[in-house]
Amino acid sequence: MTQSTALLTDRYELTMLDAALHAGTHERRCVFEVFGRSLPGGRRYGVLAGVGRVLDAIEAFRFGEDELSWLSDNAIVGSRTLDWLADYRFRGDVWGYREGELYFPGSPVLVVEGSFAEAVILETVVLSVLNYDSAVATAAARMVSAAAGRPIAEMGSRRVGERSAVAAARAAWIAGFSATSNLEAGRTWGVPTMGTAAHAFTLLHDTEEQAFRAQVDALGPSTTLLVDTFDVPTAVRRAVEVAGTSLGAVRIDSGDLPVQVAEVRELLDSLGATETRITVTNDLDEFGIAALSASPVDSYGVGTSLVTGSGAPAAGMVYKLVAHQDSAGEWLSVAKRSANKASVGGRKHAYRRLSESGTATTELIRVDAAPVDGERPGSGERALHVPLIQDGVIDPRWRGAAGAAAARAHHADVLKELPPQAFRLRAGDPVIPTVTA
Amino acid sequence: MTQSTALLTDRYELTMLDAALHAGTHERRCVFEVFGRSLPGGRRYGVLAGVGRVLDAIEAFRFGEDELSWLSDNAIVGSRTLDWLADYRFRGDVWGYREGELYFPGSPVLVVEGSFAEAVILETVVLSVLNYDSAVATAAARMVSAAAGRPIAEMGSRRVGERSAVAAARAAWIAGFSATSNLEAGRTWGVPTMGTAAHAFTLLHDTEEQAFRAQVDALGPSTTLLVDTFDVPTAVRRAVEVAGTSLGAVRIDSGDLPVQVAEVRELLDSLGATETRITVTNDLDEFGIAALSASPVDSYGVGTSLVTGSGAPAAGMVYKLVAHQDSAGEWLSVAKRSANKASVGGRKHAYRRLSESGTATTELIRVDAAPVDGERPGSGERALHVPLIQDGVIDPRWRGAAGAAAARAHHADVLKELPPQAFRLRAGDPVIPTVTA
Repeated sequence: MTQSTALLTDRYELTMLDAALHAGTHERRCVFEVFGRSLPGGRRYGVLAGVGRVLDAIEAFRFGEDELSWLSDNAIVGSRTLDWLADYRFRGDVWGYREGELYFPGSPVLVVEGSFAEAVILETVVLSVLNYDSAVATAAARMVSAAAGRPIAEMGSRRVGERSAVAAARAAWIAGFSATSNLEAGRTWGVPTMGTAAHAFTLLHDTEEQAFRAQVDALGPSTTLLVDTFDVPTAVRRAVEVAGTSLGAVRIDSGDLPVQVAEVRELLDSLGATETRITVTNDLDEFGIAALSASPVDSYGVGTSLVTGSGAPAAGMVYKLVAHQDSAGEWLSVAKRSANKASVGGRKHAYRRLSESGTATTELIRVDAAPVDGERPGSGERALHVPLIQDGVIDPRWRGAAGAAAARAHHADVLKELPPQAFRLRAGDPVIPTVTA
Repeated sequence: MTQSTALLTDRYELTMLDAALHAGTHERRCVFEVFGRSLPGGRRYGVLAGVGRVLDAIEAFRFGEDELSWLSDNAIVGSRTLDWLADYRFRGDVWGYREGELYFPGSPVLVVEGSFAEAVILETVVLSVLNYDSAVATAAARMVSAAAGRPIAEMGSRRVGERSAVAAARAAWIAGFSATSNLEAGRTWGVPTMGTAAHAFTLLHDTEEQAFRAQVDALGPSTTLLVDTFDVPTAVRRAVEVAGTSLGAVRIDSGDLPVQVAEVRELLDSLGATETRITVTNDLDEFGIAALSASPVDSYGVGTSLVTGSGAPAAGMVYKLVAHQDSAGEWLSVAKRSANKASVGGRKHAYRRLSESGTATTELIRVDAAPVDGERPGSGERALHVPLIQDGVIDPRWRGAAGAAAARAHHADVLKELPPQAFRLRAGDPVIPTVTA
């Protein structure tokens, strides 16, 4: 049984619903859009993740007996609103960027069309998913490009809320990580999992040699032995003694990595373990990975910095009403004018304009007052919106493990459109401008 | 039905279990401890949160048919390990700091005693919960002290993964926040909820006046009207026209807050709405709150900075083996010697030493090789460990809404022990030293 997501909601959404029902304005057809005003942390491009999870969250957004009685007992909304919520399921349309797609400031990554009532109450859960998952994917993509083809594994579960950990593993995989330590991400999303042993395993045994032997006996010589519990060179020698020169890999989780890695490579080679790989996992971020590019590292493991968005832990996306029908049924573009938070009214369509050689040059946004069903890419433009939900029916292609795999493939494809300066790690402007036509 | 937490686990824990079962070392009695090597972000004190959630996660850490068949199909562990996991429930002991308690570098906030096998596999989920919840609580406590008695509401759900949002609301409440926007936190943990309307509600209606009237009609004049969708002074006048001088509050969510707040207060007073409160919610953190201390603000709402730990999104706690019985049944203290990550072996007991006037002076840690059942506070010392689980039986006092309320009360009590310099916002050393005896 799927857990209801209906109370993963800010109270003001239900209060607004209550007031709109009272005023008779709740059925006005509306367009809400999700976009970010900027790319946090001076990122050159954003990576959209969480779309498949948003679709699951919308499907599970149902008010059962438990939810309704709590809302009633706590006088959150009136009885008419309770009746309305009891029948709720989202029956509108959702368009959006494909998961794994790149985005820029103002990109309308999700467009929700429906009555005010049915669309306004989805705000919090939609943003929670997209803001966290996209923050992780955006950080992950930078780490993947810094690793320049060497595999990276996600191992940050212990540094973030236990369910966000699963989302982080999924988002990192979509952005090009090769594996995760998180088993639930393997089960739910089909992400490849990895992991062998921690320091505790070495410390449990009477000697390091005994620990290595126990691990190799159980897992075979192709395993990865952790060599920094006591003295690294001693442990590397022991590891090769125990596992032989076919030892799969050694892992280093502490110390001055460029120096350590070079010494360990030399030692492994001198022992004949020339095929034994070196994996490093000590508090790495994209800068630490880049600093190891000249070192004989075979693979990386990244934890804290990945799951906390490497300095930008939330993508800063907002969910805004941009158009609605008025009391006469006319479509109106609407926008608030709050200082520093003004928005652009009207339903947006989005295209990525490409040069003749296929390089992205512009994020092009076309604005209408009324919703237009379907995209109209011009020559040299790629339409960015796909239908995700139509009349309440969710497109299954974007969901589950298959949806996550498709997102990963799509991300790899569209990344090739970016100009080389996109992959600079230092903070700067978005690599292409957003133009609203 | 509670969801299983068993796969919220890094693969290496099950791999270690597999190897230990193979070697026959899995039943060695062990002590694992959770502690942080430092307080991230130069915080003066840490606030422990998540204990009640850890107890729930341990109870739900069971391997059912679904989990076992996935582990089997994916060859994560061998068949003997699968049999062992099928019978798993934690039967050991857990001691820990009370939820809401303060902690310092090296504080043994959780002590897990049991067989290697039963204790090692809890590492990831225990750390996920404590690292996230404590990061939020530690940031929240700084905001509460900066607010100097004015109420603060948590409204950051949209800026963090959807289930972490519930944990954040709970942690902030324990650390002294007065309410949350998150309805699930209200239902599950008894946190008071709040919220009225967003800009979308104003934009939905043909005029701002119509929107205000709809809200006041439905919610009464004691509601909070959002006054920055278009022009603030115009909106404040309209708000008082519509709701009368008994209008509950106005909310400002943008602009230069100290200036805005002073102008709005003056305007409200000139309109006779002298009792109408002002609440502000624009990207505040502890520094922004402190900067408004001289302004006539009545309450604050905090979002992004709270749920992302205000610059320190993970508490950095680790779960380390510190003692175990060897093959002869003798207790050994163990510690790794990895560069920069060395740990102190042995089972720790923790006490807060207080001056005669009741001010905390020292975090005192006493170390034993063998577990000692019970604490031995000296004169002027407060024992910090309480039993949380004994022989697998969880103490109900620390769980559910009652446990969260008890944690909030405990936090308020122990905060009074801190010397005044603890409440300086700028980065610095922990306010009391940790001494290992």
